[in-house]
Amino acid sequence: MATDVHAELPQSLKDLIENQELHAALEWLETNPPHLIADELARMDAVDAGVAFRLLDKDRALTVFEELEPVDQQQILEGLRDHSFLELVESMAPDDRARMLREAPAKVAKRVLAGLSTHERRMTSALLGYPEGSAGRYMTPEVVALAQDLTVQQALETVRSKGPHAETVYTLPVVDRGRRLTGIVELRELVLSAPDAMVSDLVVTEPAFAYAGDPAEQASRLMRETNDLNLPVVDSERRLVGLLTIDDAVEVIEAADTEDMARQSGASPWSGHYMATGVWRLARYRALWLSLLLVAATLTVSVTQLFEGTLEEVAALAMFIPMLIGAGGNAGAQAATACVRALAVGEVRGSDLFKVIWREARVGLVLGSLLAVLGLVVGTLFVNAKVAVVVAITLVLICAWAATIGGTMPLLAKRLRIDPAVVSAPMVTTLVDATGLVIYFLTAKAVMGV
Amino acid sequence: MATDVHAELPQSLKDLIENQELHAALEWLETNPPHLIADELARMDAVDAGVAFRLLDKDRALTVFEELEPVDQQQILEGLRDHSFLELVESMAPDDRARMLREAPAKVAKRVLAGLSTHERRMTSALLGYPEGSAGRYMTPEVVALAQDLTVQQALETVRSKGPHAETVYTLPVVDRGRRLTGIVELRELVLSAPDAMVSDLVVTEPAFAYAGDPAEQASRLMRETNDLNLPVVDSERRLVGLLTIDDAVEVIEAADTEDMARQSGASPWSGHYMATGVWRLARYRALWLSLLLVAATLTVSVTQLFEGTLEEVAALAMFIPMLIGAGGNAGAQAATACVRALAVGEVRGSDLFKVIWREARVGLVLGSLLAVLGLVVGTLFVNAKVAVVVAITLVLICAWAATIGGTMPLLAKRLRIDPAVVSAPMVTTLVDATGLVIYFLTAKAVMGV
Repeated sequence: MATDVHAELPQSLKDLIENQELHAALEWLETNPPHLIADELARMDAVDAGVAFRLLDKDRALTVFEELEPVDQQQILEGLRDHSFLELVESMAPDDRARMLREAPAKVAKRVLAGLSTHERRMTSALLGYPEGSAGRYMTPEVVALAQDLTVQQALETVRSKGPHAETVYTLPVVDRGRRLTGIVELRELVLSAPDAMVSDLVVTEPAFAYAGDPAEQASRLMRETNDLNLPVVDSERRLVGLLTIDDAVEVIEAADTEDMARQSGASPWSGHYMATGVWRLARYRALWLSLLLVAATLTVSVTQLFEGTLEEVAALAMFIPMLIGAGGNAGAQAATACVRALAVGEVRGSDLFKVIWREARVGLVLGSLLAVLGLVVGTLFVNAKVAVVVAITLVLICAWAATIGGTMPLLAKRLRIDPAVVSAPMVTTLVDATGLVIYFLTAKAVMGV
Repeated sequence: MATDVHAELPQSLKDLIENQELHAALEWLETNPPHLIADELARMDAVDAGVAFRLLDKDRALTVFEELEPVDQQQILEGLRDHSFLELVESMAPDDRARMLREAPAKVAKRVLAGLSTHERRMTSALLGYPEGSAGRYMTPEVVALAQDLTVQQALETVRSKGPHAETVYTLPVVDRGRRLTGIVELRELVLSAPDAMVSDLVVTEPAFAYAGDPAEQASRLMRETNDLNLPVVDSERRLVGLLTIDDAVEVIEAADTEDMARQSGASPWSGHYMATGVWRLARYRALWLSLLLVAATLTVSVTQLFEGTLEEVAALAMFIPMLIGAGGNAGAQAATACVRALAVGEVRGSDLFKVIWREARVGLVLGSLLAVLGLVVGTLFVNAKVAVVVAITLVLICAWAATIGGTMPLLAKRLRIDPAVVSAPMVTTLVDATGLVIYFLTAKAVMGV
């Protein structure tokens, strides 16, 4: 972030470790903040990152470790001896630990769980019991909950006694005798109130909450809407089981957006660091969709073959194929991306399907008419008026069709309970390529009678 | 979110207001939480939203208002009479108010500023003085700052006396006599410590911070990395001017991601709600790039014209054009999207240009070789072995070229200080379409000697 291209760039930690300049590396580590150290570690291979990590003093090591992504944490852990390994794992927050274990190979996971104290192991196993990607996986189970009949002073004493073990004390869930969630109190309210005031007067009843089985992304976006710092997480009987903290929610949102963007470009999402992922792995994440799309694109070969006669009679038609299907693909991709995002942030719902079709069809017609004017000019300049008319009409039809398809597919996916982001721009483009060619050749036949 | 397709969907607030069923609307408003009300208002036109808003009781009205986007806030305000208008505007947080004013027409802005108390007006004008999109625009100026030589008890008293006016008291910046930032203390530490402990023992020195002129997105992503709830914002002399709170940071990140996604699909970013934006406006946001890309795509027409001879001799070559440039476009879009995102979240820096070129060229070669196998099969099935070889070789070259271009362009943009997200997938696709055709025809000439 702060690092930019300078004439004399100071050497990066990566370079220093690679060149075995350990003393200089030590200096680098001492003069840089933990999040930058974590950034650098994420860019290095496992062995080098391990060396750099062992150069850190114990306190800083923990802070840096906490800022690493789960995959990187696991790499570092694998390289550590038993003693440091256990110390580090025991001091992690239970939710971070559970998340790391999810991505770790079974061998590492076993070693971690075996080394934990009973208390910590129990919490971690509980978190691991929730489905992947659920709010339960991301919540912290260490919560300071309050009874409703306390005074402010008593509540603050509870916070003082239980607070040191909790990840946050800023949102204090209020529970009844059956540990069912009845409200929340902000620490701020307690601090600003008279000691003999009653907690029940400060409590926010009917707070927003999530079930442990809810998708973590949904719970996180809810926090973004309600502006809460922490969201109570409850079980199916509304008993409090944890809190989703805002810093975890931000990570969930950022990861979900990264995933959506990868999907939108027709790549499989992955959780690694771009610079630390090998060429073969990068290729693997992209290969599946690329191959499927190529196979789907053979449809365009068939369509062209079908209309070979038309193409032979008016050879000039071939010249405009890339431009026309390109325009269709672009119009479709715009609509698909807009709808995928609107679904993700909750602006559009599954039930809006027909409204979206009607909107996008009109938007496509408007855009197509605009492009048709350009198409008339281009067609006339390169060939003749008759071909230009074919190009222009095709542009109107292709844009309306592409925008409609692009807007519809994510909503259909949503209704079929498939992640709408799977409807990638390349998928829409490929579909529009084949159908667009049919539109083009049929228009040519109609206008030119070939 | 919770609303899904049901057999008997309860009527939406929008429908109720449109059908003038105000009593039912009142019931709807009473039984739904503020963020869902805000969601519904955002989907309605200005007049209907105004009617619904005036049905809310005063306290709830403010909560709902705070959860609206700036554009929607401004719409609601315009419909209110002076008395309610002023009450609402005065009670807004200064940073939210400044953000709304930024998007409001001059007439509304004047009416707002004229109606404010001197104190509130001064804070709002100060925030408006920072450049658009800067951390200064998004921070809250109402901060409880502490002197370093206080005891915990004294510090808590400061919080109690100044806290009610501040947006947050969870992070307390520590400043010297010149109001320069020297550290931060968490309220949690104060609450959990003995009353006679010294603040200086609890302070985190050298905290992360942002300058008021820094881009808000950069500051927000820093908070995501450091997991801080609040980030001190300072002026050029490191004097404390405000705090960026995590809920604003989340909004900044979500808006930046929405913007990046729109750009990636070749549309101009806008801040409206998808369902509340008219067809003509939606079309306008997409028209510019779509037209530019069409004009750029005339390059493909020229290229095809240039190789007309080749195409006439081997007419079968035309059949594979859509498939080949489609594959190139997809490979380029994957690489571009991956690099744009890696730049946005800080995994890749401008200085990584050559490393990225080298990585993507190899990824492209791997992917191209994979597709070439499929291409050989498709080519042989549809035409003959010779054409199949041309198709296969073209796929290898086109994928390597497209991935390299896709990975390079965002980094070049970054180096030229252009937003890398402007390098959209359609832009890369269009560029690869034209150059890909050249590769195809040259390969055909070389292999078949036509």
